[in-house]
Amino acid sequence: MRISELSAASAVSIPTIKYYIRQGLLAPGTRRSKTQADYGPQHLRRLRLIRTLVDVGDVSLDRIASVLAVIDDSAVDTHDMLSVVHTAIAPAPPGNDPGLDDAIDEVATYVERVGWNIKPATPALRQLAQALVTLRRLGWEVTTDVFEPYMHAADSVAEWELERLPHSDRRADVAEGVVIGTIVFETVLTAWRHLAQQHHSSRRNPSTDTANQSNSTIR
Amino acid sequence: MRISELSAASAVSIPTIKYYIRQGLLAPGTRRSKTQADYGPQHLRRLRLIRTLVDVGDVSLDRIASVLAVIDDSAVDTHDMLSVVHTAIAPAPPGNDPGLDDAIDEVATYVERVGWNIKPATPALRQLAQALVTLRRLGWEVTTDVFEPYMHAADSVAEWELERLPHSDRRADVAEGVVIGTIVFETVLTAWRHLAQQHHSSRRNPSTDTANQSNSTIR
Repeated sequence: MRISELSAASAVSIPTIKYYIRQGLLAPGTRRSKTQADYGPQHLRRLRLIRTLVDVGDVSLDRIASVLAVIDDSAVDTHDMLSVVHTAIAPAPPGNDPGLDDAIDEVATYVERVGWNIKPATPALRQLAQALVTLRRLGWEVTTDVFEPYMHAADSVAEWELERLPHSDRRADVAEGVVIGTIVFETVLTAWRHLAQQHHSSRRNPSTDTANQSNSTIR
Repeated sequence: MRISELSAASAVSIPTIKYYIRQGLLAPGTRRSKTQADYGPQHLRRLRLIRTLVDVGDVSLDRIASVLAVIDDSAVDTHDMLSVVHTAIAPAPPGNDPGLDDAIDEVATYVERVGWNIKPATPALRQLAQALVTLRRLGWEVTTDVFEPYMHAADSVAEWELERLPHSDRRADVAEGVVIGTIVFETVLTAWRHLAQQHHSSRRNPSTDTANQSNSTIR
């Protein structure tokens, strides 16, 4: 298809498509003449993946480049791919708060006690440590015990997610599954947490019943 | 205390403190002379709350103003406060994808079936609908059934969170608890999901065992 058709099918403008090609995020089309190139379904697929990373994951183009490089590198297995995607969508916080190093040790000890096999450089470990530091600065007396309900909830979700990973001979399918699943379902999980908080809050405060609104359209 | 002491205690620069005062996010200090004002512990507390919203929640100053207004408005109860905080940290996606309206109806039907009491305008409903639309555009055949594990995980986390809300006569304490808890523990939940994905992925691919790294420090 022509670039105009690719643009229509992907809902990405022609200048943006050309920009992605210049940045190396998208392969150039096959030249048909001096002014025309031909694009295939793999271009459309890659564009949709980039837009998901931008629109849903709020990932910068720099980080998208590193995610795409990993998808295209057949030497990288699913497990390592997960690390790259996690780092791209949730980089380690840059903070150098006093107490952060101690908090990182606390988190490491907790993860060890739980018995999980986690790479030491995983940004999520630093994020959890930063959360402890932030809460304590705000006057909350918290220990790593506060993590328990989150750890259990995450455990059940991740077990289900890994079982559902697409089984395919095309490695690119699996890679895309990991990227999309990680990013889109992060939004799904946090959205459900908000709904669940509303639900439990309204159970605790029956006076704030919104049932009278239940006949209006949810829009 | 003087503004220099407030700055040292909060780790927020003096120009930034002055900027927050001009923007109405922070009350002015009590004038002591033409060039000096006095600040109290309530200023320090408010500054820490603003920094948490900025640093952890990545919330814009506009949205912070609306969160603070709700904290300070004694007519707003905990339940309504939750809605304001949720909207501030996760605004409804602006998308107008074809199929979004139908997906919103699907999500509404699912929430009704689950029996949760949710305000129709809640952004999370639109986020879930947008996730369905995005996945389908990427070729995933999904129905609202895909939400089930996330709904259950969120339910158990939120039940525990609402039970743990600070009980205090000072309404501002409860309000701050809602704001901080919602934002900081969102990071905690998504960080644990990343760890849990790594854990289950390494169980499925034992060859990628990282146990040999377990003696190095997690930093």
